[in-house]
Amino acid sequence: MGPARALEFARRNRLRFVDELKHFLRFPSISSQARHAKDVAGCADWLADHLQRIGLLRVKLIRSPGHPIVYADWMGVPGAPIVLIYGHYDVVPAEPLKEWISPPFTPNIRGNDLYGRGACDDKGQLFVHLKALESYLRAERALPVNVKCIFEGEEEIASPNLAPFLLRNQRALHSNVAVISDTKMLGPGRPAISYSQRGVLSMELEVRGPQKDLHSGSFGGAIHNPIQAICEIIARLHDDQRRVAVPGFYARVRPANREERKNMARTGPCDKNVLNTAGVEQSWGEPGYSLYERTTLRPALTINGITGGYQGPGGKGIIPARAQAKLSFRLVPGQDPREIERLVEKHIAAITPPTVISHLRTLGTARPVIVNFNGPFHRIARAAYQSGFGATPVFVRSGGTIPIVSTLHDVFRIPTVLMGFALPDDHIHAPNEKLHLPNFHAGIRTSISFLARVGCMGRRNVCERQFELSL
Amino acid sequence: MGPARALEFARRNRLRFVDELKHFLRFPSISSQARHAKDVAGCADWLADHLQRIGLLRVKLIRSPGHPIVYADWMGVPGAPIVLIYGHYDVVPAEPLKEWISPPFTPNIRGNDLYGRGACDDKGQLFVHLKALESYLRAERALPVNVKCIFEGEEEIASPNLAPFLLRNQRALHSNVAVISDTKMLGPGRPAISYSQRGVLSMELEVRGPQKDLHSGSFGGAIHNPIQAICEIIARLHDDQRRVAVPGFYARVRPANREERKNMARTGPCDKNVLNTAGVEQSWGEPGYSLYERTTLRPALTINGITGGYQGPGGKGIIPARAQAKLSFRLVPGQDPREIERLVEKHIAAITPPTVISHLRTLGTARPVIVNFNGPFHRIARAAYQSGFGATPVFVRSGGTIPIVSTLHDVFRIPTVLMGFALPDDHIHAPNEKLHLPNFHAGIRTSISFLARVGCMGRRNVCERQFELSL
Repeated sequence: MGPARALEFARRNRLRFVDELKHFLRFPSISSQARHAKDVAGCADWLADHLQRIGLLRVKLIRSPGHPIVYADWMGVPGAPIVLIYGHYDVVPAEPLKEWISPPFTPNIRGNDLYGRGACDDKGQLFVHLKALESYLRAERALPVNVKCIFEGEEEIASPNLAPFLLRNQRALHSNVAVISDTKMLGPGRPAISYSQRGVLSMELEVRGPQKDLHSGSFGGAIHNPIQAICEIIARLHDDQRRVAVPGFYARVRPANREERKNMARTGPCDKNVLNTAGVEQSWGEPGYSLYERTTLRPALTINGITGGYQGPGGKGIIPARAQAKLSFRLVPGQDPREIERLVEKHIAAITPPTVISHLRTLGTARPVIVNFNGPFHRIARAAYQSGFGATPVFVRSGGTIPIVSTLHDVFRIPTVLMGFALPDDHIHAPNEKLHLPNFHAGIRTSISFLARVGCMGRRNVCERQFELSL
Repeated sequence: MGPARALEFARRNRLRFVDELKHFLRFPSISSQARHAKDVAGCADWLADHLQRIGLLRVKLIRSPGHPIVYADWMGVPGAPIVLIYGHYDVVPAEPLKEWISPPFTPNIRGNDLYGRGACDDKGQLFVHLKALESYLRAERALPVNVKCIFEGEEEIASPNLAPFLLRNQRALHSNVAVISDTKMLGPGRPAISYSQRGVLSMELEVRGPQKDLHSGSFGGAIHNPIQAICEIIARLHDDQRRVAVPGFYARVRPANREERKNMARTGPCDKNVLNTAGVEQSWGEPGYSLYERTTLRPALTINGITGGYQGPGGKGIIPARAQAKLSFRLVPGQDPREIERLVEKHIAAITPPTVISHLRTLGTARPVIVNFNGPFHRIARAAYQSGFGATPVFVRSGGTIPIVSTLHDVFRIPTVLMGFALPDDHIHAPNEKLHLPNFHAGIRTSISFLARVGCMGRRNVCERQFELSL
């Protein structure tokens, strides 16, 4: 069953596909904010309904202690390979709101881009595969492969309830290949397949001083200010070489492979390119590594937020009772999030002055992962990109984190293809997030082509080891 | 004209006085927040109306580029001394709102305390004098002295428009003594008269990095994070001796006088007392000084607020575009706010790394001041406290700032009596600000007694030097 009619269907339904995506983007499915729990649930309902409407045979809304997981499958070709498609329908918060040109949950097309929170990360990329499935199911009344879909609502909060669900259902979720689209290309017309993900350890640091805010005239100079103390602590989390100063932090980092570094220098973005995309003039970070390496091969600590005292217009003469910061450590293979958590706790306790109290809380963890990209599915993915984009993708490391990958790849041992359709300037996690619509349509063509080519492998070519491991 | 009938009037009208103060406290007259400009204006109108109702002869609402100044006088005894009464009807913001037991602008009495923003700083203390004037005017149909009142709406934002008004009207404002109630007692039944005020230099620091928020997975490790950079800058504003690390900061600080320090140790709060009031266990600050000295004799830098990146629940993987902090330097005699401003600007520029941009903006300044307390008016004030509180006040240094004092005392050369009625635990600038009602009533008795005693001085005892200087 070739892809021609599915491709034709996709071509004819371009506008409707975009309209439907706009509907999907209207849900403020912000997983980290309790006040949006209903919106997340509403988005899950809509997605489940949509999966049913496009022709998936079994659709389930799976409750979790947090936000629901939407599961769907189509197992209509006995013996054909099973493709597992993963994506997430939750999004990060939209703040700062005033920097959005159009409101974050009112999708808006300007030029070739569709703007809105989640347009790229990950609703738009997830939708690529849905529309590929729909195109096949409508044009051919069947898929060339079997498909299982897992769409979660907690990726942006480190997927706390996904691994338990996966492990509980390892047999039922058995698949031959996993496809995930939540990563970046190198630029327009320059597709890329990621083969590594950094892990994450996300924490909240609180520093407490006086029991209540104090007048800074009456007490300034005699009491340690929690804002100053948290700044002093944060300043001591990097050394003067801009390395993370937590003792033992680098101890288990696997040294970079010379061959790989050479390859990265050839295929990956150069420093100037990274700086251009970031919109900054000067780089920063650990000496001895390119910016591409610093953001992928090497671990990093970023402070994602800080708050304390009076933040309104003008001034207010106070020593506040407390200050808080959000820290996230991006981890690389060799580093175990739980071990790093203990090292960070120990270090923060050691550098907290006796004049304040510090409290550290872990918000989420995910393991780093390197995907083996020498198998047949990665070859198929390259060919599929060639069909969809007219260009051959390069294999790149990614600095981000998709928590499911380590479970699928390292535990279930399912070959995992990180087939990204995001552009470096799609402003993911930032105001004015967008999806480049030509990538959306080329992505659908790539996905159709991938499904067709996997279908052509037939049963014989499916690696038996996978079955054994996952049954 | 003795104070007996005025005191009797005040006694009989205790409850009404408190009710009227509650009305005054209902205005959210937050001078620093533009959205409350109407509330500040409404509060000024109410106050002007109230002054008229209690019998002051001439009441004027004086517009300024900012919030209005309420002026009133009663010049009914030709040749008698003129008492200038200053107070401020603006308040600091009420945030964090959720820490208030009763809403900040819904005054609430619990036990002997009246809770509400401004109850103590300074509406309640200002009202003490109004009710003293009213008691005299109702009981005697006259005051024993002449009175000029200046009530401003910008004290909490460093009085940017007050000094120009004063200087423009120096002749018209000529007075023999100024009375200001915006300072603290040592404790219940332990009155105090302040003889020094720290100055202030209030600034806002912004550190800018990328033009927009960036994904911390994609860029973490390669870009200097503005939150981290602002923390690094703030951490370098104190040295390891907890002294302000701005070069030249202490150069003009007048060394402490041994005699005065001995006296301060005898009369002022001990370290334990300061810590108890602050609700902290361990002190902090410059070595070699008691906490009372650190907060009065010595300058200090406090960070009043900090903000940057994501501050909601959970996490968000970003490197934010910017971070901001509010700094206030409390200055002591010898230090010039404008010179310190230049030193701070120079230092921040020097320690800002080339990977970010820093921007410093001055929000307000006020000069430090030491009041001469050896004249007749301070003797009268002590006697008045004895009448009002049944206790003799001690002379103390204050760590706070009332910008008008330096103009009245240093420029106009008017003897200035800082007659405070606040308790150390009245939570000024903090949630659950309160006024201890026994202090309110004892304050009214003290004010009545002060007016009576100044009236008894007669014309002869009024220091002629004052007239010459201020005409």
